[in-house]
Amino acid sequence: MKTATIVGAGLVGSLWAVYLSKAGYQVSIFERRSDIRKADISAGKSINLALSYRGWKALKGAGVDDAVKEIALPIKGRAMHDKESNLSYQPYGQEGQFIYSVARGGLNVKLLTIAENTENVSLHFNEQCTGADLENGLIYLENALTGKKTEHKSDVVFACDGAFSAIRYNSMQKQSRFNYSQEYIEDGYRELLLPANEDGSYKIDKNYLHIWPRGRFMLMALPNEDGSFTCTLFMPYAIFDTLKTKADVDAFFRKTFPDFYNIMPDLADYWDDFPLSSLAIIRCYPWAIGKVALMGDSAHATVPFYGQGMNAGFEDCTVLHDLMLKHNENWEKVFEEYKVTRKPDGDGLQDLSKHNYLVMRDYVGDPQFLLQKKFEHRIQELYPEKYLPLYSMVTFSHIRYSEAWNLGMAQEEKIKALMTKHNVKEHFESSSIDALIHELVETNQL
Amino acid sequence: MKTATIVGAGLVGSLWAVYLSKAGYQVSIFERRSDIRKADISAGKSINLALSYRGWKALKGAGVDDAVKEIALPIKGRAMHDKESNLSYQPYGQEGQFIYSVARGGLNVKLLTIAENTENVSLHFNEQCTGADLENGLIYLENALTGKKTEHKSDVVFACDGAFSAIRYNSMQKQSRFNYSQEYIEDGYRELLLPANEDGSYKIDKNYLHIWPRGRFMLMALPNEDGSFTCTLFMPYAIFDTLKTKADVDAFFRKTFPDFYNIMPDLADYWDDFPLSSLAIIRCYPWAIGKVALMGDSAHATVPFYGQGMNAGFEDCTVLHDLMLKHNENWEKVFEEYKVTRKPDGDGLQDLSKHNYLVMRDYVGDPQFLLQKKFEHRIQELYPEKYLPLYSMVTFSHIRYSEAWNLGMAQEEKIKALMTKHNVKEHFESSSIDALIHELVETNQL
Repeated sequence: MKTATIVGAGLVGSLWAVYLSKAGYQVSIFERRSDIRKADISAGKSINLALSYRGWKALKGAGVDDAVKEIALPIKGRAMHDKESNLSYQPYGQEGQFIYSVARGGLNVKLLTIAENTENVSLHFNEQCTGADLENGLIYLENALTGKKTEHKSDVVFACDGAFSAIRYNSMQKQSRFNYSQEYIEDGYRELLLPANEDGSYKIDKNYLHIWPRGRFMLMALPNEDGSFTCTLFMPYAIFDTLKTKADVDAFFRKTFPDFYNIMPDLADYWDDFPLSSLAIIRCYPWAIGKVALMGDSAHATVPFYGQGMNAGFEDCTVLHDLMLKHNENWEKVFEEYKVTRKPDGDGLQDLSKHNYLVMRDYVGDPQFLLQKKFEHRIQELYPEKYLPLYSMVTFSHIRYSEAWNLGMAQEEKIKALMTKHNVKEHFESSSIDALIHELVETNQL
Repeated sequence: MKTATIVGAGLVGSLWAVYLSKAGYQVSIFERRSDIRKADISAGKSINLALSYRGWKALKGAGVDDAVKEIALPIKGRAMHDKESNLSYQPYGQEGQFIYSVARGGLNVKLLTIAENTENVSLHFNEQCTGADLENGLIYLENALTGKKTEHKSDVVFACDGAFSAIRYNSMQKQSRFNYSQEYIEDGYRELLLPANEDGSYKIDKNYLHIWPRGRFMLMALPNEDGSFTCTLFMPYAIFDTLKTKADVDAFFRKTFPDFYNIMPDLADYWDDFPLSSLAIIRCYPWAIGKVALMGDSAHATVPFYGQGMNAGFEDCTVLHDLMLKHNENWEKVFEEYKVTRKPDGDGLQDLSKHNYLVMRDYVGDPQFLLQKKFEHRIQELYPEKYLPLYSMVTFSHIRYSEAWNLGMAQEEKIKALMTKHNVKEHFESSSIDALIHELVETNQL
């Protein structure tokens, strides 16, 4: 029987196991942690993720999309909270286009259970991978509880073991000509849980991703199923360092996020519930050596500002599955094409994520930026077949990340030039914006 | 007594041991390899390095420059060999300005012996450092011969253990917010030893660094003390891959480097004497954590195209020594300033090295480039106090690398613009070049 090893029972590893099992592989998953389904984690409380088109496509390809839909909350746009507690809204896409908020823990449990119930998938927990013989598809393991060292060999190996992948670190990075970089951004983040009202209802509108943009930093909130919101404050370490006491935290929120403070006045009591965490961008190459391929965060861990980290990892499954079919499971050919064709999209993902970090941080509250979004949105409504904003390419399409990045940057320049040339604001005010857009399209300026 | 640990008995480690010993430290050096003085290596035959001002200053600071001068050969410029076997010469600097060719092995032996004979320095070979407790100045060791594991603690620790530093890899890289990148260039290199004539004389002029630039690749040769030259072919892996047999190698050299082929017609027999090796640029930050600092290649390994790798490592000694005096051996303050102020120069070094890779590869044989060098050289001769070419800033000055890079790039633009504006070639031909330069200076264009 054909055999495959997956290192890491996280989101990508669990999903990829379902794909491989359906293709007739005997799949062994090795995970260094204990079974998250038995561990005492408050699944759904900490960290949630935004599922968009790429993620759904990959889930559908494995036939697990319906199961995931049960735990996903649709989000139709951004709700911006300014310093005077005014709210403004931006839809993410066109009518009916949503992103979905899912809890990492809940999603992982769901995918893991599906994988376990699929034929020929075996799960092995507390098994730390300490390295690999890449050419022979052999991995080395050490049991975290017993200390017992074992080996496991199979036809192919997939490292789905996250941003600090043991396989990449112990077996690839020391190889000559393996390029690698880990780049931490200046900001860290800290989470806060905004609880539901006593009757279980949401404290703020659950149909939106809420943002409190404040120039150099921002607070974000995504709804959970239970009426709570997971809130994340992204901020330079230097500013976090100034919040030394509960009183500092209290004063900072009261002044900086007054409407948030009003709904959670005791937030300072919960400040230490989650640790201050760092954010890194990881790039490497090649993504496959011998019989071992990197997938998901082990290949391209990113910062969370485009909500594409998980989606990109899931899309790796789509890409590898397509190549597996194309090359009739000749893994040498599959990996050869995977590493050459998928890498630019990993880089595109990083460029997009870094770009959106700046957009969300510096521009999301900027009137000129909001006007541009409104302009783009109207162009798209009038000429959906002619105009796709960058955000839609990334979130609501399957255009390659590398292509989206290049198209998006070119489009951005064009739109900005048109806004400089024409007084778009006045056109909106005098309701002549549609006429302007029609004219721009007719004269091939759009 | 004050104690210091140095990991790595290479060039930087040996030199730094002399500095610390003179400052009254009890210094323990741990080296994973055996004693190179007892090993069977043909010191001086493989890899030679170019010592320039920064290196000499650091050697002088430790009082070891005279000893090194005994094994260093002065090189006054570049000798370019074109495809038709024509030769042209470029001086490196002004009259009396040389770089010095030294063999890595011979220099290492010399420095190691000096360090060993300095008071309170102990050398420990075959001791592999497996990691460190950075905050406590503790390193973990494993003896390569006996397998015995030990620890060693001291007031301060210096990781001089090279591009693939064990301390950096095992103890720093996994720390949150440690930035790291290793970037391999497309080219590899292979060495060849051009032997001396039977009477011990040199086959080509020993006063020059010889270059055979061929656009996408190049051959270089630096003299050794014994009449031989160490020759290095830098070339894309893809081209190396085409040279499969002795006959391929023979035909390639005969066609591409005819004059070299003439003096070493049996070179194909020696093709496999040295391995095909890769070239990487390593950047990381911070260079000091707790009681441990990175120095030399462990902090900023680079490609060899500016001949500054060793010089930069030696300059780290100068910088750290100055800071040690400035902060009265308060290492916390020393490291704090070292990591902030020296890092930009590590980046400057990388920018310079990458730039010169392109210059040597693509431009050194280009008539327009040669004209520019000649123009710059003449400007410098006439106005030495007003004009310092980039190469001189890097090689014959102590201007910080970061500053040299910035000044150099600005100057490059200016010179190119002047060459576009004035027909410099004609001015050379009609001997009016000096008049032009005087005029440019008088009108503040230079």
